[in-house]
Amino acid sequence: MEISGITLVLGGQRSGKSAYGESLFAPGRSALYLATAEAGDDEMTARIAAHRARRGGCWTTLEEPLDIAAVLRNLTPERGAAPVLIDCLTVWLANVMAAGRDPEVEGRALCAALQNAARPVVLVSGEVGLGIVAENALARRFADALGELNQAVAAVADRVVLVAAGLPLVLKS
Amino acid sequence: MEISGITLVLGGQRSGKSAYGESLFAPGRSALYLATAEAGDDEMTARIAAHRARRGGCWTTLEEPLDIAAVLRNLTPERGAAPVLIDCLTVWLANVMAAGRDPEVEGRALCAALQNAARPVVLVSGEVGLGIVAENALARRFADALGELNQAVAAVADRVVLVAAGLPLVLKS
Amino acid sequence: MEISGITLVLGGQRSGKSAYGESLFAPGRSALYLATAEAGDDEMTARIAAHRARRGGCWTTLEEPLDIAAVLRNLTPERGAAPVLIDCLTVWLANVMAAGRDPEVEGRALCAALQNAARPVVLVSGEVGLGIVAENALARRFADALGELNQAVAAVADRVVLVAAGLPLVLKS
Repeated sequence: MEISGITLVLGGQRSGKSAYGESLFAPGRSALYLATAEAGDDEMTARIAAHRARRGGCWTTLEEPLDIAAVLRNLTPERGAAPVLIDCLTVWLANVMAAGRDPEVEGRALCAALQNAARPVVLVSGEVGLGIVAENALARRFADALGELNQAVAAVADRVVLVAAGLPLVLKS
Repeated sequence: MEISGITLVLGGQRSGKSAYGESLFAPGRSALYLATAEAGDDEMTARIAAHRARRGGCWTTLEEPLDIAAVLRNLTPERGAAPVLIDCLTVWLANVMAAGRDPEVEGRALCAALQNAARPVVLVSGEVGLGIVAENALARRFADALGELNQAVAAVADRVVLVAAGLPLVLKS
Repeated sequence: MEISGITLVLGGQRSGKSAYGESLFAPGRSALYLATAEAGDDEMTARIAAHRARRGGCWTTLEEPLDIAAVLRNLTPERGAAPVLIDCLTVWLANVMAAGRDPEVEGRALCAALQNAARPVVLVSGEVGLGIVAENALARRFADALGELNQAVAAVADRVVLVAAGLPLVLKS
């Protein structure tokens, strides 16, 4: 099956959400992996290496911690029809907040870029709002902003799934 | 569609659960908003204001931090058929525990009142049990009590949904 | 309905996951309860007592904090067809890590034993990855290991459900 439109894959920590997102891409076909994480520490380096090993050779990787909306706007159909996997919005939002940018403004720009995207896009994002509310005010603000972002992206997506234990629950299709 | 019976809307932090609960009410028809939160700090005041703006003018708001079962018992059909939105049980339970009342006794009284309610009732509640168990004993006890309360209300509800990214997963219908 | 094959029941803290797992067993028929928790403190003792009261008299209880794969391997059909409830993998994994064993090796041994199990098995496990990521590195490592374990068991299971407020969402069937 060819992937089309906008798909949002939500999931918790180690839910298998990234592997599920990758599984939506036809094997052996070229695709663009838009990585929002930078290999800042050993834990993250190991995670990125594991993702890379799983994806295999027909993926092009682009690292972009902040301006993913601009990357999407620059993807014209003329440059090839390779679909895009953005992994993940959780890290992107953390980068946005660390850079002092406004999460709401950036979220609106991302949604506008998605609605005009020239290629199919799969976005992976974390669901972090189903535990006890954090005592730490920054963590609470992050969870609020991620919840708002997930709602906004879900509203413009054609399909939304929540992954648990590697298995999808369909929220929108 | 006219709302009927008892509906429980569960969701995480910033999942869109309150907006989803409100969306179940027919637009332009009168309804009763039973708010369990009091405008104690700036964050809460802003949240209440946002809810109020979203709801519009045909809602009557009643603030009741503790005795929501009594409010339900006093709603006779003669006083009008306006359905009720209780938002939210998470804050109500925190109020119950802060007041030194027994969560189990209060939960049973609420469920009994729901089973005899003269009007349709939608209850919004938080799902906080899907993260790592809290180190803080009070937070752990709260999560336990909320889990028990959600189970008890779900058992007497006609419909239960879990909202994620603004979208409902049907648990009971 | 007779239970068959391998069933994984996931759920959060006080979600009703254990009671749901028990409800899959035919009433009045003998069954084996494989408890991974030891009655180490008052809170745990109370929880075990509540589980025991709910289960009633036709259950045999076996306490095994670590070697549940060995117990499964020793269950021959000749010893009777009583199905098995393993409650829960969360505590088992904590025991594995506290004993200095490798969670991945132990998880693989468990999955191999499940695939060869001579009787129907229901496993209850916690879903802890849907909250904000823990600040505590050990808690984060535990959440990662539990997420991996749940994915591995889900892959060999015939049925997987996520329980919230006592109600099941089917992930695999």
